[in-house]
Order: sequence, then structure tokens, then C-alpha cells
Amino acid sequence: MNRVHVPIQVRWNDLDAYGHVNNATTLRLVEEARIHVLWAPTALERDVEGVVPAGPLGVFNASPGSDTLTFIARQEAEYLAPIPYLRSPLDIHVWVGKIGGSSFELCYEVHPPAGVAVGTIYARASTTTVLMDAASRRPRPMRDEERAVLETYVGAPIAFRR
Amino acid sequence: MNRVHVPIQVRWNDLDAYGHVNNATTLRLVEEARIHVLWAPTALERDVEGVVPAGPLGVFNASPGSDTLTFIARQEAEYLAPIPYLRSPLDIHVWVGKIGGSSFELCYEVHPPAGVAVGTIYARASTTTVLMDAASRRPRPMRDEERAVLETYVGAPIAFRR
Amino acid sequence: MNRVHVPIQVRWNDLDAYGHVNNATTLRLVEEARIHVLWAPTALERDVEGVVPAGPLGVFNASPGSDTLTFIARQEAEYLAPIPYLRSPLDIHVWVGKIGGSSFELCYEVHPPAGVAVGTIYARASTTTVLMDAASRRPRPMRDEERAVLETYVGAPIAFRR
Amino acid sequence: MNRVHVPIQVRWNDLDAYGHVNNATTLRLVEEARIHVLWAPTALERDVEGVVPAGPLGVFNASPGSDTLTFIARQEAEYLAPIPYLRSPLDIHVWVGKIGGSSFELCYEVHPPAGVAVGTIYARASTTTVLMDAASRRPRPMRDEERAVLETYVGAPIAFRR
Repeated sequence: MNRVHVPIQVRWNDLDAYGHVNNATTLRLVEEARIHVLWAPTALERDVEGVVPAGPLGVFNASPGSDTLTFIARQEAEYLAPIPYLRSPLDIHVWVGKIGGSSFELCYEVHPPAGVAVGTIYARASTTTVLMDAASRRPRPMRDEERAVLETYVGAPIAFRR
Repeated sequence: MNRVHVPIQVRWNDLDAYGHVNNATTLRLVEEARIHVLWAPTALERDVEGVVPAGPLGVFNASPGSDTLTFIARQEAEYLAPIPYLRSPLDIHVWVGKIGGSSFELCYEVHPPAGVAVGTIYARASTTTVLMDAASRRPRPMRDEERAVLETYVGAPIAFRR
Repeated sequence: MNRVHVPIQVRWNDLDAYGHVNNATTLRLVEEARIHVLWAPTALERDVEGVVPAGPLGVFNASPGSDTLTFIARQEAEYLAPIPYLRSPLDIHVWVGKIGGSSFELCYEVHPPAGVAVGTIYARASTTTVLMDAASRRPRPMRDEERAVLETYVGAPIAFRR
Repeated sequence: MNRVHVPIQVRWNDLDAYGHVNNATTLRLVEEARIHVLWAPTALERDVEGVVPAGPLGVFNASPGSDTLTFIARQEAEYLAPIPYLRSPLDIHVWVGKIGGSSFELCYEVHPPAGVAVGTIYARASTTTVLMDAASRRPRPMRDEERAVLETYVGAPIAFRR
């Protein structure tokens, strides 16, 4: 299965008064992984050597003036183990769970840094992103080149324990 | 149906670069509503007249030294309309969707302030809270008095569009 | 001395792993007080009865399309006592410490809710706001009507212990 | 001059509705740099190969049960240019501006990632950390080995434009 691995730094301030990464904040880490993976390089990034390149799915242009907006229509998360503060980045796995007419589901597993608590999964999550036409603010059909890129990373959706 | 209404202030900083309340941040508003509703008065609150009293379900004591910890095992949210910045508080509806042996599901609807965009629901969400024994860090059975309070606010769980 | 009193709700998530409101987060509370005080009613707020009105200094229009942008050029804070979580709002005092040609300094004291820990001041802060022309993105002179409103709330600047 | 360079990732969510990193959030980035630099390796970090090591000043043990607490008594920041979102980490410079009997001042400059907007400084900041005895919750004298480490990184304090 073809997953993207995104290193995401926890911040000490992500901890809440219980001393672990807060559950709502975990979705902020997931959000950051999604942006690393999905967004095409920005103008600023294109001009700079050595800048972290866009993610392998980097087909969506979120720059001001782009003809497309994205909207998160739903998200879901399951918390399996508390996330501690560590200065090395978490390893967030990202893949595509489902592709629709104008939307797609991303799936995420939040893993410890390589070498830490091996075998642990801290959390699983999924998000549904809707592609919107920037002018009309209505959903617009997915383009063939977008679908082609997403298809490279399709895997089984998460079976949440509800 | 018996819902608790919790007024929660949006902060300007809850907006993201799209100019609306960020989707992960919406779960922070929901978290705050949950704490208002569930937590018994703290020692500091008990000593003070005029302090906002504990919520009507205020049976859970989250103070340091309490014999119970709570853990969010899952959450889910559906976003229906963008939440703008307003200085008057949102009206978050909270009710109990399900009661288990040592856990319960809360359901939330995020509404505009009274009088604003009447009929709009910005978002729906649910969270599953597990009661843990503070010493053993394992789930512990719900007590009769806890169940009795939760039962007062039981309503139909949210039918998420998945 | 003429101070504006702004009630600002702490969120449980403002606490960090030490169990008190985080010091950087305190500046977020101060930011929210500033916006309550300074911003003119938004279009949405003007249409709605019962919505919290703009602050008494509400002369600055931050809506998209406004001819003015504001920029925080500096801020400073001094922390005197840890801020606990309470469901009743903090009482943040705001006044004008200094008025310049195209900028002004606001001063803040963060107090407990009325009746709690009487006499305590949790923190003091100041911020310098620069008025910018939205088109040129350069500082622009303060207008007479802006200066007149700010002058109503002038008080002694905070003498920080450096 | 001997400065520590700490790479700190901006998150897209650090942007506010103006599309730049929020000014209060900049102090969160500074906080994260401080923790990277100051804290000794945690128990979890000591057990793991490949984990980012403690900072070069890593003499302070913030683990639960440590005999020392730290408290931020003041902070100050000056904002020179808006910080954009980039997937490569900012380069935060950290040095020691002043050493007192039981406290010390850290100074920070927030620079773009290497190769981006060369010569730009986004922000300057300073923080005063007080060492507290965990049992008495009162300031305690700095130890010789702590002072010795801090002295290695002493440089001129920031001359803020007030």
C-alpha cells in the first residue's frame, strides 16, 4: 500500500493540562500533514532551492487567486494512545480512502517518531475535502489530472470502531 | 428534547487564513462547551459568588486528585456552513446520544448567536468520553448517580452523512 | 482613569501542561480584548439586534475592503500570577497609553472575574498598533476622529519592571 | 557571537485571517525554540536513538518530579515583517542576553528558512525565565553548572525600539 509519510513536529504547547497532546490539537497535526501532502508549491517555494518540496500529491493550488477552494466537509478521529512531547517529529501516514465526483477522503495514521514505541499507533483520522469553484463557491468536478494523482495513493479506508 | 445551551465566544484568532473559524478549531469550541456542561464546580468556583455555575450535567470532577480521569476515545464532525467572527457567543447545543458501561457519547450542534442567521447550523459533532480510574488508568464502570444525570439529557444521536 | 472593561472567557485548552494559562496564550486573550474594544461593528453585527455592540473605541473598520489595515509592531507582557481555569470570564482592563502620528499604544491589565482573588492582577501588557493604508501598505496618518476617540481613554502607560 | 540555531516549522494554522503568522503565535514559535534549546533530554528521549537531542543549553529538567520549575516572568517582541507559510522550517536564533541570580534572559531572532528572503529578520523577542524551587514554589539561586552553560551563549541583549 502506497502511503505518504509526513514528519510533523509536536509543539510543547500542543499538550493540554493532562500533559498529552490534546485531542482537538491532534486534528491540527493531521491538518498540517494534509497541507504538506496536497498543496502544490507556492510561488515563494518555487523560487527557493532547498525548500521542502510540495507533497507527492501536490496538485492543488491554494494560493490567493487560484480558481479552486477546498472545504473540509467532515472529519473523524479515533484516539488509541496518548501522544507525549518529543523533539523529534511524529510520522504521520497519509493515503486516499475514497474518490468521489468533486470530493475525496484522506486517511491518516499518527505514529511515533521512528524508533520510539515501535508498533504504537496514537490515532487514526479521516477527512473529506470538497473541491469548490472559487468564483461560484459551489462544488466543482474533479479534473482528470487531479484524479490520476489521487489514484496513486488509494488504499483501504479506515474501519473506525463506532 | 432536553438540550443544554452553552454560549461560547469565538475568538478572532479562531479564524484561519480563509477568514472563517478553522475546522479543527471548531472542535475546540465543542470541547469548551463539553467542559462547561460536564464538570462539577472546581474548588475555586465553589468559593465564589457570581461565578458561572457548573453545567447541569456537572457530575464529573476533573480536579487534580479526583479518582476519575476522562479520555476522549473518538470524535466526529460535519461542517455545514462557515463560522464567521462575531463578538456575541455562539449557541452550542449539547445532549447525550448514547450511554455505555463506562463511556458515553455527547452530541453537539453549533448554532449562530440568537437572532443571527436564524435556522443555520454551522456544524454537528459527537464525542465519546471514557471514564477511567485515576489510579489504574483503566476504564471503570459508570456510577448510578452519573448515569441518572446523563439520562436526563438523552436524545437521538446525530445521523452523520458519511 | 477611564478604562474599558472587557470580559474574556478563558478556555480549558488555554492551559498548558503546567495547568495554568500559557504565557503566549495570555497574549491571545489580550488580542481578543483589543478587537472587542477597537473594531467598529461588522456588517453582520449591524444587522442583528442583541449582538454585543462594538467597543467604545470602535472606530477602526477591519472588514475586507476597508481602506485601513492595522499591524502590531510590538508587544510586551509581564506575568505576575498564574491564571487558572474558571468558567466565568476574566476582567481585562484596556486603556490608551500613548498616541503617535500613525500609531498608538494600548495597555492591558488582566484581572480575575469579579469576586475572585480580589486585588490580584494576573498580567500586564502593552501593544503598539500601526495604522496602514490598505492600498500602499504603508503607515498612514491618524485621522482627527480616530484621535478624538482614543484620547477619551488615555491613561498612564505601564511602567514595566525590566 | 555564539547563537543556537533552531529550525521551527510554521503550521498553516499559525496564519490568522490576514494570511500571515499571527503576532501572538510568533511567541509560540519562540517558546518552542526555547524548549528545544533549554530542556535536558526527557526519559523517553534518552531511550531512543535518532531522536533529536536536547539543545546545547540542555541543563534544565522539566520532567514531572524535577526539583525545579521555570516561570516566564516577562516577554517582549518586535515585529519587523510578516511571516508567510512555508513548508521548510524557520531559522530561529537563540542566545543569552543576561544572567541574574535566579533568572536569565533569552533573546531570539526569527529568520526565514535558509535561502529565503535573505537578510530579512521577521521578529525579535526576549523572555525572562525564573528558576523556582518545585517544593516551595519560590525563586531559587542559579547553580554553578547552570550558569556555566548559559555563559557559553551570552551575547548583547536586543535593543528594542520602544
